[in-house]
Amino acid sequence: MAQPQVMDKLVSLCKRRGFVFQSSEIYGGLGSVWDYGPLGAELKKNVKDLWWHAMVRARDDIEGLDAAILMHPRVWEASGHVAGFTDPLVDCKTCKARFRADQLEDAKCPQKPSRHPGEHSTCVLTEPRMFNLMFKTFRGPVEESASVVYLRPETAQGIYVNYLNVLQSSRQKLPFGIAQIGKAFRNEITPGNFIFRTREFEQMEMQFFVKPGDEGEWFERWRGLRMAWHRELGLKPEKLRWHEHTGSELAHYARAAYDIEYEFPFGWSEIEGIHNRGDFDLTRHQEHSGKKLEYFDQAANTRYLPYIVETSAGADRVALTLLVDAFREEQVDGELRTVLGFNPRVAPIKAAVFPLVNKDSMPETATELFNDLRKRFVCFYDDGGAIGRRYRRQDEVGTPFCITVDGQTAEDRSITVRHRDSMAQDRVGMENVAAYLAERL
Amino acid sequence: MAQPQVMDKLVSLCKRRGFVFQSSEIYGGLGSVWDYGPLGAELKKNVKDLWWHAMVRARDDIEGLDAAILMHPRVWEASGHVAGFTDPLVDCKTCKARFRADQLEDAKCPQKPSRHPGEHSTCVLTEPRMFNLMFKTFRGPVEESASVVYLRPETAQGIYVNYLNVLQSSRQKLPFGIAQIGKAFRNEITPGNFIFRTREFEQMEMQFFVKPGDEGEWFERWRGLRMAWHRELGLKPEKLRWHEHTGSELAHYARAAYDIEYEFPFGWSEIEGIHNRGDFDLTRHQEHSGKKLEYFDQAANTRYLPYIVETSAGADRVALTLLVDAFREEQVDGELRTVLGFNPRVAPIKAAVFPLVNKDSMPETATELFNDLRKRFVCFYDDGGAIGRRYRRQDEVGTPFCITVDGQTAEDRSITVRHRDSMAQDRVGMENVAAYLAERL
Repeated sequence: MAQPQVMDKLVSLCKRRGFVFQSSEIYGGLGSVWDYGPLGAELKKNVKDLWWHAMVRARDDIEGLDAAILMHPRVWEASGHVAGFTDPLVDCKTCKARFRADQLEDAKCPQKPSRHPGEHSTCVLTEPRMFNLMFKTFRGPVEESASVVYLRPETAQGIYVNYLNVLQSSRQKLPFGIAQIGKAFRNEITPGNFIFRTREFEQMEMQFFVKPGDEGEWFERWRGLRMAWHRELGLKPEKLRWHEHTGSELAHYARAAYDIEYEFPFGWSEIEGIHNRGDFDLTRHQEHSGKKLEYFDQAANTRYLPYIVETSAGADRVALTLLVDAFREEQVDGELRTVLGFNPRVAPIKAAVFPLVNKDSMPETATELFNDLRKRFVCFYDDGGAIGRRYRRQDEVGTPFCITVDGQTAEDRSITVRHRDSMAQDRVGMENVAAYLAERL
Repeated sequence: MAQPQVMDKLVSLCKRRGFVFQSSEIYGGLGSVWDYGPLGAELKKNVKDLWWHAMVRARDDIEGLDAAILMHPRVWEASGHVAGFTDPLVDCKTCKARFRADQLEDAKCPQKPSRHPGEHSTCVLTEPRMFNLMFKTFRGPVEESASVVYLRPETAQGIYVNYLNVLQSSRQKLPFGIAQIGKAFRNEITPGNFIFRTREFEQMEMQFFVKPGDEGEWFERWRGLRMAWHRELGLKPEKLRWHEHTGSELAHYARAAYDIEYEFPFGWSEIEGIHNRGDFDLTRHQEHSGKKLEYFDQAANTRYLPYIVETSAGADRVALTLLVDAFREEQVDGELRTVLGFNPRVAPIKAAVFPLVNKDSMPETATELFNDLRKRFVCFYDDGGAIGRRYRRQDEVGTPFCITVDGQTAEDRSITVRHRDSMAQDRVGMENVAAYLAERL
């Protein structure tokens, strides 16, 4: 299948089956903003819950946090975002369009789309101007500079400014981390690729505070742990790779940085970054706030600013990766079968329950089983149409197990469990279905 | 205990133990914006997960949704928020302060705090002006009216504009609902009472679409279900009551409205609203978008706009209610004991594991048990200080069970489970602890 076609088919499937809708679609849509439908909301919740479990609940040395989107504007002065979180833009005086000055080769001239901006005879491009990517708003009733606040462009700063509060309330000692999941906003000039680059997105970030000198070891350890996490989601190993930031790629605050990249239909792209940020962040906040942020190391009887190793993943990007990685079309008995081959742990629906036909007490038995199973698992009941079509509908949304109540059920209270990928069927006693599913989820 | 004192003690406990911190505290704080610390993040996540389970996963007739905060600006014209979501404000020309014109009696003159604004000799108040409560920002590089977008002041509109997409992708029939959890923003002039009224907050809203004529029955049914949900969280029944909106209290779009109120230390206040909105919302969006939003009723072979019954709760308000309801101080053996008597299902930490003393293999056994239990439950390990002090530290954050490995454990592999409220202890075999906890959570 041609790669651009994959994205078109996936976007269409996502709308048709309720994974992702364009925001405000009945009003013509809001560019590069997307809403998660019933199945997408479950998929993304599963991603976030798995991350929270792995990063917070299953570890002694990481504390959770849920900081607000709105923060004191001086946070963004300290972080460098007010001065430096900018893209260079040029205007065309003729057509009034704006472009990233560093990406003119990827842009099209609105007057003559076969040319790049600046290449058509009527183009009059201005000198590049720096444009800040933070969304700005105003607190209180007056729109004036004194009341400006920003929508956070990253969740990390919420962790740095709460570092002391978390340290003092949690009885942690170095090394330890703080993790949070939350929305961030960037006024991107060139968003795109469905839910890959959007102006509103959700981050899953963890900042790990270590004794200076230990950051190299922890950087390597976190690289290993985070790559393992993505692999355990079931992503194809050959589609994952490391990209090391070198030279001018490396942000001014980073001593080392690696991206975990996935090979999307639109090319290799970042889904998570692991960064050795040194003491840049706490130094800046200590300077700007005037508040001592040093850690007192009891064992060594010294004080120092911790170094930070950051792991920063996008929840929307992980959701997109799972969709792309899971999507396949195959021929089965001369017919096209579309499958989302999700790892059962991320699948929005864990099991579908069908009565084979709507008679002979099958609907009653199937409903009884469904009501029992959905106390523990997200389940779906379907009694409409031929059984083969019901299987296909579940394949297309990635449901790993389809459970059918048939003629034999009334005789021996057994049902069939049909597996999405192999399409093989097991016969299982009704009383054992919950345990059967629990074992495989 | 005097009621204002309760809030002061609770705010202090919340900071000290890591439930809630002031946003950007090291920069002097951002007024009425709060961050959830390690325990608060778990408490709020438990609230949201219980709501999502009850409203989405455990029901056939409700679909989940996760719409973006940014929406097309015409959504807020259709909803009436651009024109009508306003508070009347007056300025004082002398001191430049602003006040809600309808709440002057609750405000203090900054020049003379013993008087209300307008009552001091130098006060010069302007006529009231209407001030829109929506936060405004700009998409794209230019700050101009064409690029204005709003931070949503409620999540409900995200549901209305996605109603058709959800209906078509989910195979639902009327009556059915759409539920979502998400942030909303209101530029309140007078926020306050800790996390009760804040400028950034999280809603848990469900819109139930019904055939016209059925709304009365569903309104009553949802009133019953939602009150039952709050009671099942363990709130004291005498602290919950209904408040019916009558006369001018009733919003222009509402045919009937009841609030579930809780008796906070600052008085009876709304934690959830149940509203019969009729066909107001879909009518407006149909008019403004030009898109047919009618439902085709196959059984009756007719088309109509569904009526809507809304349940709208605040996740932060529910979290505050749980904290207030759980907070108590009591005398135990002549000492003051502070307890958060949470229902175990919402408690941030489910069980703490202690070695009685740090020798005789007790730490090893306790660590082994802790590592086993935390695969399923959020647990905390503590080996610091006298056992009595460790119990008190857990009482103060609402941990329902404390598990102690003691001298007898090495003999018969049994441990003690100490109950937070009764302080009674059970002796339980180590192999049975997980089942013992599961039964009680």
